[in-house]
Parts: sequence; C-alpha cells; structure tokens
Amino acid sequence: MSAVIQIDEQALIAACEHLDTACLSDAMDSMGLDGGLLGIDQQVPGARCVGFAYTVCYESVEVGDGFRNAANYIDDVPANAVIVSSNPGRTDCTTWGDILTHVAIGKQIAGTIIDGAARDIDTVRRLGYPLFSRARYMKSAKNRVQLKAVQVPLSIGGTRVAPGDLMVCDSSGCIAIAREHASEVVRRAHAVERTEQDIIASVGDGLSLKQARALHRYDQPWLSTEAKQRALS
Amino acid sequence: MSAVIQIDEQALIAACEHLDTACLSDAMDSMGLDGGLLGIDQQVPGARCVGFAYTVCYESVEVGDGFRNAANYIDDVPANAVIVSSNPGRTDCTTWGDILTHVAIGKQIAGTIIDGAARDIDTVRRLGYPLFSRARYMKSAKNRVQLKAVQVPLSIGGTRVAPGDLMVCDSSGCIAIAREHASEVVRRAHAVERTEQDIIASVGDGLSLKQARALHRYDQPWLSTEAKQRALS
Amino acid sequence: MSAVIQIDEQALIAACEHLDTACLSDAMDSMGLDGGLLGIDQQVPGARCVGFAYTVCYESVEVGDGFRNAANYIDDVPANAVIVSSNPGRTDCTTWGDILTHVAIGKQIAGTIIDGAARDIDTVRRLGYPLFSRARYMKSAKNRVQLKAVQVPLSIGGTRVAPGDLMVCDSSGCIAIAREHASEVVRRAHAVERTEQDIIASVGDGLSLKQARALHRYDQPWLSTEAKQRALS
Repeated sequence: MSAVIQIDEQALIAACEHLDTACLSDAMDSMGLDGGLLGIDQQVPGARCVGFAYTVCYESVEVGDGFRNAANYIDDVPANAVIVSSNPGRTDCTTWGDILTHVAIGKQIAGTIIDGAARDIDTVRRLGYPLFSRARYMKSAKNRVQLKAVQVPLSIGGTRVAPGDLMVCDSSGCIAIAREHASEVVRRAHAVERTEQDIIASVGDGLSLKQARALHRYDQPWLSTEAKQRALS
Repeated sequence: MSAVIQIDEQALIAACEHLDTACLSDAMDSMGLDGGLLGIDQQVPGARCVGFAYTVCYESVEVGDGFRNAANYIDDVPANAVIVSSNPGRTDCTTWGDILTHVAIGKQIAGTIIDGAARDIDTVRRLGYPLFSRARYMKSAKNRVQLKAVQVPLSIGGTRVAPGDLMVCDSSGCIAIAREHASEVVRRAHAVERTEQDIIASVGDGLSLKQARALHRYDQPWLSTEAKQRALS
Repeated sequence: MSAVIQIDEQALIAACEHLDTACLSDAMDSMGLDGGLLGIDQQVPGARCVGFAYTVCYESVEVGDGFRNAANYIDDVPANAVIVSSNPGRTDCTTWGDILTHVAIGKQIAGTIIDGAARDIDTVRRLGYPLFSRARYMKSAKNRVQLKAVQVPLSIGGTRVAPGDLMVCDSSGCIAIAREHASEVVRRAHAVERTEQDIIASVGDGLSLKQARALHRYDQPWLSTEAKQRALS
C-alpha cells in the first residue's frame, strides 16, 4: 500500500492545468520515474492537454485478409480522457483524422497521442484540438492495420503507458505518470515550477545564474519553500 | 482503352479545389492504387496546391568536375503545373529557394514538391507559396548535383510519379494520381468526403460513431448516395 | 597571416543583419568553405540571429555517479554571442529550457544552437528567442549528461564550429564562418544577394530565368557589379 496521499481525479487535473511537462519530468526524475514519450511531437502549436490515458493498440493485417471496418473504440472513451493510440511507431498509415477529431471534441475528450501518423492536420489545427503524433501522412489505416486491444499497457518510445496514467502533453512532448505516483509527482512539480520562477526572478534582480540556483536550491528543486527554509535554519 | 470517362484538365483541378488528400487517398485505396509520397511535409502552414506534375530529376556530380550552372528547367514549366523535383531523397543540399519561388509565382505555377531539401523558407512562407519537401537546409545544389532529366517518371517515398499525374498536396502530405484514373478517383473522393461529413453530422445528432458509420456505409464510403440508397432498398 | 582585410565585430554583425544563410552559404561555396550545420532546425518561426560562437560541450555520465548540478556556463557568455551547445546529437534529454532562455534574453545573448533537444518551446516562442535545435523533448539533462568543456571546437552535423566563429541562423538552418574568412564571406554574400535580386527583377521584367541568370552572371554570383561590368567590357 502506498504511503502517498492520493488526491482525486478532478483535483489532479486542475493541479496540472498550469504545469508544463518540463517541471513534471523533473519531479519524476527526482523519484527515479520515467515518463517521457520520445519522438512524439505537438501537431497544433500551443495546444496542450491533461487527462487520464485511454489506451488503444493496433496491429498489422495481412494483405488480402478482406475488408476491416475502422475501429469505433472512441464510443467508449470517457470525457476528459487522453486517447493514447499505438500503431506501434508505424508512420506509413494513419489512425487519426477529421472524423475522430470531431467526435473527440463532441465528447469533450481532452486530447490524443498517436504513436504513428495522423492526417487532416489543417482541420485539427482549425479546431484547436490537442493532437500529438510521430508523423503526418494521409494514407488510411483501414485494411492495413486493425484494432488489437483497448485499455492495455503500451510501450511508446521505450516508456510504459498504462490505462489510467495521468497524461500531460505540451510543446515539449508528452509524459505518462502512473496513478500511484501522480499526487506526489504533481506536488513536487509545483515546487520545481516555484523554484524555477524564483531563479528567473533572482537573475532578473542581478544575481548570476550560479548564485540564483544555489540560493533557490536547484540541486533539489522539488523541495517545498518550507523544507528549503528548514534546511537553511 | 480505359472505360473510365475522362473529364478535362480544368474540370479536374476545379473538382479537387476542396478535396483533401485524405479523401483522395481513401478513394485510391478503394481502387487498389498507391498515391502517397511518404516523408514529404508541408513547409508553409495552410498552403495547399492542385495541378499536373512536371517532373525533374537530379543526380550527384563528382567533386572536381568543374562548374555547373543551376538548372533553368522552370522556363519550360506551364502555368498550373506542380513541379515534382527529385534529388532523390538527398537532404544535404537544396534544389529550391527564393529565385525559383519568385519565378514560379510569376508563372502561376501551382506549387512544388522537393524530394530533398529546400531553402529560404521565410521568404516562401511570406509569399504563401505551396512548398512541400523532405527537409530544410541552406547549402546549394550547385556543383553538388546536376539536372539529369525532366518529364521522366520518378519514385518518391516508394511511390511512382509520372509527368502529367494529378498532384494534390495539403497538411497531410502529397499524393500522385495517374491521369487514366484521375476522373474516377476524384468522383469517389467526393463520395468519401460526403460520407465523412454525413458521419460527423450524425454523431453531432447523437448517434454513436459505430451507428453513424454503419448508417452511412463507412465500409464503402466511395459509394454515391444513390448507390447506398439502392443497396438499402 | 591572412591577406584578407578584417572588419570589426560590430560591423560584421551589422553587415549580416539582412543576409540570409543561403547567400552566405553560396559565398562560402565559392571559397571552398563548409559552414552548414546539417539537421539543426529553427524552433521559433521567423526568429533569426547573428553573433559570435560561444561553444559548450556535454558528455554522458554513468548512472549512479551521484547528483550533478546543472551547468552555469551562461554566466560567462558575453552579450551578442550565439551559444553553440553540443550534447553531441543526443535527443533523449534536453540542455536548454525556460531558465536559460530568460537568462539569455536578460544578458542580450543573440541566440542559441542546441545539437540535441530543447524544452519549454511554448515559452521560447512566446518570448521570441532565436532557438535552433535537432529536436524537442522535456526530459532534463541533469544527471544524464554533464558539462565537459566550454570554448572548445565542436563538430555539428559533420561541420566544425570553433569559439568566435561568426554564426548566422534563420529558417534554412545555421552556418558557422571562421573569423579569418568572415569579412570576405560577408562581402561575397552581399554580391550574391544583389545578383539574386537582379535576377528576380529581370524575370519580373519578362526575361526567362536562363536569360536573367546569364545576364547577371549566376555562374559567379559573388562578383561585384563592377567586376561583372569589367568582365563584360
């Protein structure tokens, strides 16, 4: 049983609203956790998202296996989820486009990560939907790949993503935080963010970066202000 | 002799004005045709183009072969063409820049695809010229590569592009459609587009994606509304 | 001792203010010099920079080597420098982010090149800071790599960058020009720029590209207008 105090889902999401992936990743580093999804890029400039992972996994089909309908898994995805869809790394056909984008927005899904290619990027940008993928390409997944499973653990860029992981995505990429660690990661990330703001302010006041980092304990940026003061007293 | 009814060039281009590469690619899939140019990306956000391919092929030169002038093939390119220029995949020198962009706009050339690198991207963006390439780099092609041939078939990302192919390029990439299939591909793509809009509208009306796709025959989205009604009656 | 007349630093920077990397690279080609940094991309659309290289080199650390503070080299970087930081090509952790961006702007550093990954791209874009890198990723360099040396020669994309090299970076990428050649490269680049503008104007006046390039000696675009006139007379 974890000793970490869990905060509820909505509070976790609200707490991440202004946290970037950089601070969250630094917090995970401080706990020895791995969260970054290497090679997945923001496709809509400025569009970030936060939510719990609904995972989807595709597999290749043999040519001549007959027609396969497109997957309708999105009917089962709850509001505020982040869809994490692995075609595992395949960029020569696409598993996301305008229909899914419209449905996702209608269902208030928070955003989508595609380990593969996405299409209809102009539409996605016009609608401002937070889409993250490895590539852009127009060739359909239909009859090239098929849905293998939903709500199973995935490996993206070498990092594990499990159903229900807290996902945060922005201009620096996407991270996955296991639920059991999410409260503590978010708490530490807020301290990291505060430490970074303090350092920037101190440099603005004339300190060197070395002085500012020493003053604000950049060696342990996840410490709360109180813990830093205790350490100094 | 093809049984497909050919429509004329201007009508084909006009018919593609509001078609995206996604719908055209799905129409090609339904006919067993391959059109996507893998790895070629839109360089000017929002800039799409439609036209018939004028193909250009470069080859490497040996160091010390003496000076070679830049190629002037663009003098022969007709208005409304899409230049498709292969340096085949080489991204360490550039075969497109500001001079060619200015000339292309002056000649009302529709757009350019570079299987290689392009430069002067700021200028190209400022002028809003539809440029698609594999990379961006400033080092000139002069004395590194030379014009090998124009108006010959090319292979780009594994897909054949022949002179006169109908090219459509947008945020999802570039596709090449052989002239003999173009009328039928465009006809089917309009049906695909209509099917997709119907699905989006039905989901907006409260249907699940599964229901909407079944209702609008997403298993055969290229069927006309009339053919779908005949199948239901 | 070089026979080239050196102009002073501020004059060199001012002379590059409106020169793009394409013209400078063509000038370097005419002198047999290599300057392009292959694979380094502009991260902030429209943001270019000019300055003298301050070089930084990172190296990997062994896991379990204990905590290492982030590097504070930026305290020593002079105003108007371009930071050229090599993590050599490694894109799975980042050596640039929001703190360094704020410090760099405060110190009037001209821009930054990262041969590796950078993070906090939304912030960097909002601040309009000229950042160039191989990738975007959020995972910190702390405890993954450490500062190895500053102000040593680097190899980026196969091209040498030495401390004090004149760096120019724009939408086509980044180039490094050795100080001993900088005056002559800049002089020739202005002639290239003039030649290109003359060609564009002549095509606008109705000449073919072939005619315009012949008229304005595109075989030797780095010649001054006077040298071209002497050659014609």
